[in-house]
Amino acid sequence: MDWPEHITQAAQRIAGYVRQTPVMQIDVPGVKNPVSLKLEHLQHTGSFKARGAFNTLLSGPVPKAGIVAASGGNHGAAVAYAARQLGHPARIYVPEIAGPAKIALIRDLGADLVVVPGAYAQAAAQALEWQQNTGAMQIHAYDAPATVAGQGTLFREWQSDQGLRAETLVVAVGGGGLLAGAMGWFQGQRRILAVEPTGAPTLHTALRQGPDAQVDVGGVAANALGARQIGRICYDLAQQQGVAPLLVGDDEIIQAQTWLWRNARLLVEPAGAAALAALMAGHYTPSQTEHVAVLLCGANVAPDPLAAVVG
Amino acid sequence: MDWPEHITQAAQRIAGYVRQTPVMQIDVPGVKNPVSLKLEHLQHTGSFKARGAFNTLLSGPVPKAGIVAASGGNHGAAVAYAARQLGHPARIYVPEIAGPAKIALIRDLGADLVVVPGAYAQAAAQALEWQQNTGAMQIHAYDAPATVAGQGTLFREWQSDQGLRAETLVVAVGGGGLLAGAMGWFQGQRRILAVEPTGAPTLHTALRQGPDAQVDVGGVAANALGARQIGRICYDLAQQQGVAPLLVGDDEIIQAQTWLWRNARLLVEPAGAAALAALMAGHYTPSQTEHVAVLLCGANVAPDPLAAVVG
Repeated sequence: MDWPEHITQAAQRIAGYVRQTPVMQIDVPGVKNPVSLKLEHLQHTGSFKARGAFNTLLSGPVPKAGIVAASGGNHGAAVAYAARQLGHPARIYVPEIAGPAKIALIRDLGADLVVVPGAYAQAAAQALEWQQNTGAMQIHAYDAPATVAGQGTLFREWQSDQGLRAETLVVAVGGGGLLAGAMGWFQGQRRILAVEPTGAPTLHTALRQGPDAQVDVGGVAANALGARQIGRICYDLAQQQGVAPLLVGDDEIIQAQTWLWRNARLLVEPAGAAALAALMAGHYTPSQTEHVAVLLCGANVAPDPLAAVVG
Repeated sequence: MDWPEHITQAAQRIAGYVRQTPVMQIDVPGVKNPVSLKLEHLQHTGSFKARGAFNTLLSGPVPKAGIVAASGGNHGAAVAYAARQLGHPARIYVPEIAGPAKIALIRDLGADLVVVPGAYAQAAAQALEWQQNTGAMQIHAYDAPATVAGQGTLFREWQSDQGLRAETLVVAVGGGGLLAGAMGWFQGQRRILAVEPTGAPTLHTALRQGPDAQVDVGGVAANALGARQIGRICYDLAQQQGVAPLLVGDDEIIQAQTWLWRNARLLVEPAGAAALAALMAGHYTPSQTEHVAVLLCGANVAPDPLAAVVG
């Protein structure tokens, strides 16, 4: 698979539909050189997921029955948004445990929303049934080439359009779509640090037990990073490139999230702070001359913080 | 006064102490071309005020008695931060009405904090008394050349380092330090739109009644834009350059603040959304070919939104 070529094509495809998110240099406690932060949490629907959703929808014909997805979070919101922008119907199955804030986010994006009692597996089963009955297109959240190429556009943008000069890049891992996009784009030309919460050590476990390993997931970032099984595309690239994840604890994630708001007025969700947490907690120590870049990947906090500050 | 030269000197002085804040292109409802947003609310202590505070402290000797300021808000936090970074003692008089969140912000920055019963005028009187008794240096929030030159570095950075190409620039006005910095830097080479809340029409009133006019202040942005009297530096520049303010209502400010969070995960305080509100509410309609740039100037919302989303 020629990932850089696929990613370049994806970037051309989704230009005008996604935002070029800004980059900021910032001093981080315990890190010698300024860190380059990419503020991808300012993307449409509050996460990088819009890139993969648009690339999938723009890669081929969309059936008349539209799109279907199962998600209680960032992927569901991104699919609903992309479908609306492109004029396709979208049906999103949301597990009840997603909570009222994320359910409202997806509903506000105009999707045909079905709240399913139980957890993600029940929602996924209903989405599959809908797909089979109607011929709707299902967009995978992380383990499809079009999704990975879409997420990879983020790294192409950072390097080609914004002059990324860091030798080392830190990203959070859930199902591995974002990490696969990074590995696919850089092809070993950057040191990539993958970060997982201790409550969802999905890639960590797969690299020890094999690609079909399933993990129990929990913790503060579970609704964004809590994939039970790593994507195969990510697994294969991580094996080829020798990328092994760092693990961060929930308390370290919350500390980084708190630091970002207190010191830079960046409000991200726990998953969005996980990559920085690995650096701040000292799970990786850059050399004196090394420059590090950190991706802030999501900001869909719940409940809505505006409720606290407005009115 | 050669403002561009003063601003260039200020920029050299404060380099390394302030952040270069990022710029983002974004589509705004009702505006044809993408708007350039400068995210100055990501500056140290959550507003542009750090620029003027550092420029003042670095412009000459600081007395052994240190710094004194009266402020319940962004200026007080910036002065406390700059003093701490440069190793000077700072005494900040805070009016009781500032509320617990802003008081905690300033206290956390290590200042010697005095909470004064009553409103701003009482705090200012005590700050003046402290200045006279101890020889401490008082940093004016908006009407001193070093403050204005410091705030002006923001516009120099935007134009010279970040390639601002918009013909029209929109900024919020309180006492006018930021607006004066913009007018001083651009010298009429950009159309500058000044925006005031209807609850604090300070420049608006001064331009009709004279520079000494005092207004009653209130509304959602009062703790940041609620100066009772416009600074003389700002008044004179506004008269020379023919800059007249647009007025925005509190509901329009809240709508823009809400839009920024819902659509771009930018959490700003009401004052930080006022400039965008003027554009979104149609108080200014750009031409079909015109590009507009909007400054987001502050994010010190209260209470702390983290309390809602963490834990």
